[in-house]
Amino acid sequence: MTHRWFDYLVRVQPHHTDYGGVVWHGTYVQWLEAARVECLRELGVAFEDLVNLGYDLPVIDLSVRYHQPLTLGMAAVVKARLAPVRGVRLSWHYQIESLQHQRCASAEVTLVPIDMTRRRIVRRMPDDLRQVIQKIEAYFAPTEAPLQ
Amino acid sequence: MTHRWFDYLVRVQPHHTDYGGVVWHGTYVQWLEAARVECLRELGVAFEDLVNLGYDLPVIDLSVRYHQPLTLGMAAVVKARLAPVRGVRLSWHYQIESLQHQRCASAEVTLVPIDMTRRRIVRRMPDDLRQVIQKIEAYFAPTEAPLQ
Amino acid sequence: MTHRWFDYLVRVQPHHTDYGGVVWHGTYVQWLEAARVECLRELGVAFEDLVNLGYDLPVIDLSVRYHQPLTLGMAAVVKARLAPVRGVRLSWHYQIESLQHQRCASAEVTLVPIDMTRRRIVRRMPDDLRQVIQKIEAYFAPTEAPLQ
Amino acid sequence: MTHRWFDYLVRVQPHHTDYGGVVWHGTYVQWLEAARVECLRELGVAFEDLVNLGYDLPVIDLSVRYHQPLTLGMAAVVKARLAPVRGVRLSWHYQIESLQHQRCASAEVTLVPIDMTRRRIVRRMPDDLRQVIQKIEAYFAPTEAPLQ
Repeated sequence: MTHRWFDYLVRVQPHHTDYGGVVWHGTYVQWLEAARVECLRELGVAFEDLVNLGYDLPVIDLSVRYHQPLTLGMAAVVKARLAPVRGVRLSWHYQIESLQHQRCASAEVTLVPIDMTRRRIVRRMPDDLRQVIQKIEAYFAPTEAPLQ
Repeated sequence: MTHRWFDYLVRVQPHHTDYGGVVWHGTYVQWLEAARVECLRELGVAFEDLVNLGYDLPVIDLSVRYHQPLTLGMAAVVKARLAPVRGVRLSWHYQIESLQHQRCASAEVTLVPIDMTRRRIVRRMPDDLRQVIQKIEAYFAPTEAPLQ
Repeated sequence: MTHRWFDYLVRVQPHHTDYGGVVWHGTYVQWLEAARVECLRELGVAFEDLVNLGYDLPVIDLSVRYHQPLTLGMAAVVKARLAPVRGVRLSWHYQIESLQHQRCASAEVTLVPIDMTRRRIVRRMPDDLRQVIQKIEAYFAPTEAPLQ
Repeated sequence: MTHRWFDYLVRVQPHHTDYGGVVWHGTYVQWLEAARVECLRELGVAFEDLVNLGYDLPVIDLSVRYHQPLTLGMAAVVKARLAPVRGVRLSWHYQIESLQHQRCASAEVTLVPIDMTRRRIVRRMPDDLRQVIQKIEAYFAPTEAPLQ
């Protein structure tokens, strides 16, 4: 059984680094966000459209483990996939790898839909949002055959 | 003739620095913003109240000159003052100094009030905003006598 | 048994917020860092001195749970404490609360000392670092009597 | 006479925005940096190689004018070019445009080479750096014929 991943390429710019010459640990949070937003866009879902529909998807849980530092000028791949959705929680899993396939960081980010007019977590997934999410889930559904 | 300044203290944290071991040049923009917001608060004007009144104060012009770098752990004073207001443009002047009074950076930031419902620059300063600004101008009005 | 916390005050500035009008979830990582650096400074340990001794303390694990959003202009307290140290792992626990004692976020950050000349995790805590850490541990040691 | 520009594409992510729903004004400073670093890379000059040679290129002057805001999800082009070099000052000019060619911001950033071992501005451009810069200048030299 093989997982499909969405690959998002990043390049370490000076503003990503700190005094240690490596990427500052909080910078990864920006990359995790950009990777999932661009994954949605690739699947035809513009995040700004969700916001305009009156939903927001705030992060309620974030965890990152740091394995190897990235230094100025290095390129890396942020690999992202949505885990099977239970209830209203959307859980994204991440692997961040150097171009030489060295594991640099791994992460998990959980988001929940919020009704912005009432600023409350939705109890049940609204139909329009459910359709969007099923599309994303289908994309990441594990397959028997190896993917390229 | 002496200018009054509002002093805002900052401390260089790891996330402010870059690979060179000094404060990344874009970090100063955060400090300039915090200094003017805290100056307003000191004078009784909460920026969030302006936003809730339906105004925003976007920056339309920013310039920073960098004289001496600040390094990890250093403290510095962001000295801010509002220049005399002409029309609807609010122009803030800044000096950033180390605690040893060494000049590290100087800056100028210009903002204009926007009516958020129409997302347009106001042509004339609205009365409620004018009162707020006159209060701030009065605070920074140059005086004959030296200040402490 | 009561825990001692180090309190670090933050104020939500415009650059901390996102399109949702609340603090962007990655901003908290800056606050967690500033809180532990300022805690060390309060106890007489300047982080830049550790760096100058040839050590770095990279984060190897970060987790944040978000309970209630903070909005523009709000003040909050980042409460930080070092958990009892095992081996070379330094684990900081955090509670972020509004001034009305509402729980906004909780977090845990783990760091390990690195020998910067060899860029490797130290196997055993070096003596100079151990002394620093024991001082911090002593500060946070649980006491029988309630603290004020 | 037509100027050649280096085009660097950006997409507005949630972490780029502020409470106003538009890109926070300091975010542009990251984009200006990324655009010039990627322009150098395109011309065969990796910025990290300059750093490893013992040089740094700190920003000594930054100015940005903001014309039209960018909102969540919008794409924009950061157009960058190096102005003809005089002495040791490298001056980059920028236009930031929406994909509909609306001018969103314009900027100018000046950098000077620093000898990192002595942390001083170089008096004369070192030979290895001069060769790099002449290559970049040649790329941006104005031409008689219109470019595509």
